[in-house]
Amino acid sequence: MILQTPLLASTELAEKTGARSVYLKLECLQNTGAFKVRGAANKMLSLTNEEKRRGVITFSTGNHGKAVAYVAGKIGIPSTICLSEHVAPYRAEAIRKLGAKVSVKGHSQDEAEKNYQDLTVSGGLVPVVPFDDPMIIAGQGTIALEILYELPDADLLIVPISGGGLLSGIAMTAKSINPGIHIVGISIEQSPAMLQSLKAGKPVQVEEKDSIADSLLGGIGSDNRYTFSLVEKFTDEHLLVSEKEIKDGMFYIFDKHHLIIEGAAAVGVGALLSQKIHVKGKKVVTLLSGSSINSNEYIRIIQDKLTNEGKQ
Amino acid sequence: MILQTPLLASTELAEKTGARSVYLKLECLQNTGAFKVRGAANKMLSLTNEEKRRGVITFSTGNHGKAVAYVAGKIGIPSTICLSEHVAPYRAEAIRKLGAKVSVKGHSQDEAEKNYQDLTVSGGLVPVVPFDDPMIIAGQGTIALEILYELPDADLLIVPISGGGLLSGIAMTAKSINPGIHIVGISIEQSPAMLQSLKAGKPVQVEEKDSIADSLLGGIGSDNRYTFSLVEKFTDEHLLVSEKEIKDGMFYIFDKHHLIIEGAAAVGVGALLSQKIHVKGKKVVTLLSGSSINSNEYIRIIQDKLTNEGKQ
Repeated sequence: MILQTPLLASTELAEKTGARSVYLKLECLQNTGAFKVRGAANKMLSLTNEEKRRGVITFSTGNHGKAVAYVAGKIGIPSTICLSEHVAPYRAEAIRKLGAKVSVKGHSQDEAEKNYQDLTVSGGLVPVVPFDDPMIIAGQGTIALEILYELPDADLLIVPISGGGLLSGIAMTAKSINPGIHIVGISIEQSPAMLQSLKAGKPVQVEEKDSIADSLLGGIGSDNRYTFSLVEKFTDEHLLVSEKEIKDGMFYIFDKHHLIIEGAAAVGVGALLSQKIHVKGKKVVTLLSGSSINSNEYIRIIQDKLTNEGKQ
Repeated sequence: MILQTPLLASTELAEKTGARSVYLKLECLQNTGAFKVRGAANKMLSLTNEEKRRGVITFSTGNHGKAVAYVAGKIGIPSTICLSEHVAPYRAEAIRKLGAKVSVKGHSQDEAEKNYQDLTVSGGLVPVVPFDDPMIIAGQGTIALEILYELPDADLLIVPISGGGLLSGIAMTAKSINPGIHIVGISIEQSPAMLQSLKAGKPVQVEEKDSIADSLLGGIGSDNRYTFSLVEKFTDEHLLVSEKEIKDGMFYIFDKHHLIIEGAAAVGVGALLSQKIHVKGKKVVTLLSGSSINSNEYIRIIQDKLTNEGKQ
């Protein structure tokens, strides 16, 4: 159900940044196109038989919903994914094809969440939330196990942050193996909910603007129970990246490594390229978290970069 | 030095073709961007210390030259790669960066080969030919070991053909493990040298036209010693694909699997999409042999397809 994804050495990025070595953890090749399936699988495989019979439910704008539908199909349990009318029809179709029931309702993510809450109660369904759950966090942490199995002497891990499930799992796992490992969390300028919450000392809402890293949009939940404190405890360094830096990262991975990644997956490479992280002499791993992006949008970004590079 | 590359299940291709399952062997993720490094490593690691001291030489328009330079760098021996003036400067630069000596001479591949022969003699260098060598063939055969280790009950393997080193190695290895496995070789309409040679009963030259699958251009050598007879003996079915089918394959892999492959790597998918192979109910593996393609050229192909699909 879960692929052990490759670690690809990027001599190009090492040369460019002065790092001893840079490795790319290719979760963009993970089943369903993103790391999310690790947490979903860990959570759903831990349900009781009675819970499995009742079936699971979640709400999502993308990768998490697809992951839940995929795992449900694999273990043969019913799943319901709540989407708003704003979610692109091709996404709903992909989730339906995995065997899930899709409930489209409301004009915003908030209304989809309301629908999710109603259905959870009325249907007696088991929620599989996107990040703020110990089993989800532990599932994402398996990425750190794979990295440190192959590279036990890695110095520095670079991880995207949105709700913080991915960073919590990776950082907690990595530091329990090697307490000295340095964890860098990357947030996006367009929606730094976790970063603003850490500054405020409690979960806060931020205005959410459009981003090419759409998988990193969204808040951390006003009743956050786990990821807020885990991210606070285990992250050594926080950085913000701009839309331009994200696109630079996507283009670099296309041009040098011939891999397609979504915006959220490019934040670490973007930060490395703009020399925002001190990596001189270090063994660095950056996570390419997924490849879920619309084909037309992807080509437009790469085409723009090619045109601009050509002009320089 | 060599990655054990992933096998990716394509439920989309299985659904489209009626196969029980279709797997993609991702040699496009192999070090140096192509499978060629397997054969080069096997050959070069088998050299005597005296041969290693003398250093290796080859001529190439692309992937093989890069593979030889890469392996030479890893094992610390001198290498010389002969190119014609027609080879794109970025390719020469990539080979130089791997530590090889690049000798650019002549206006055609034939003249580059002449230069290679002269330097081999004058420099006392050890030739590492691109395909017609038992150690190269055996090295490419490790792909079949990896496939059948993961999928011992695979029914059908689809393999690109040019000089035949890849097909010889894979077919011989696969049939020694499972004699009943069905091997399909795919040649390109623009340069079917092996296919014409098999029809003629001996190596023949064919007129070579431009192809998007440029890694499959080139003859099989008038003094072919190994691959001609091995391909004849071990291939169950031969097919030709057109330039359009190759581009369809590249686009499909981009659009459905978010992977970048070069033309040569897309011939199997192209043949599957045009329903040229009988795969009903079978477990099928097709080899995505590499990802070496110029960024601008790649984007142009994908952009054209997106525009045309949009019009339909």
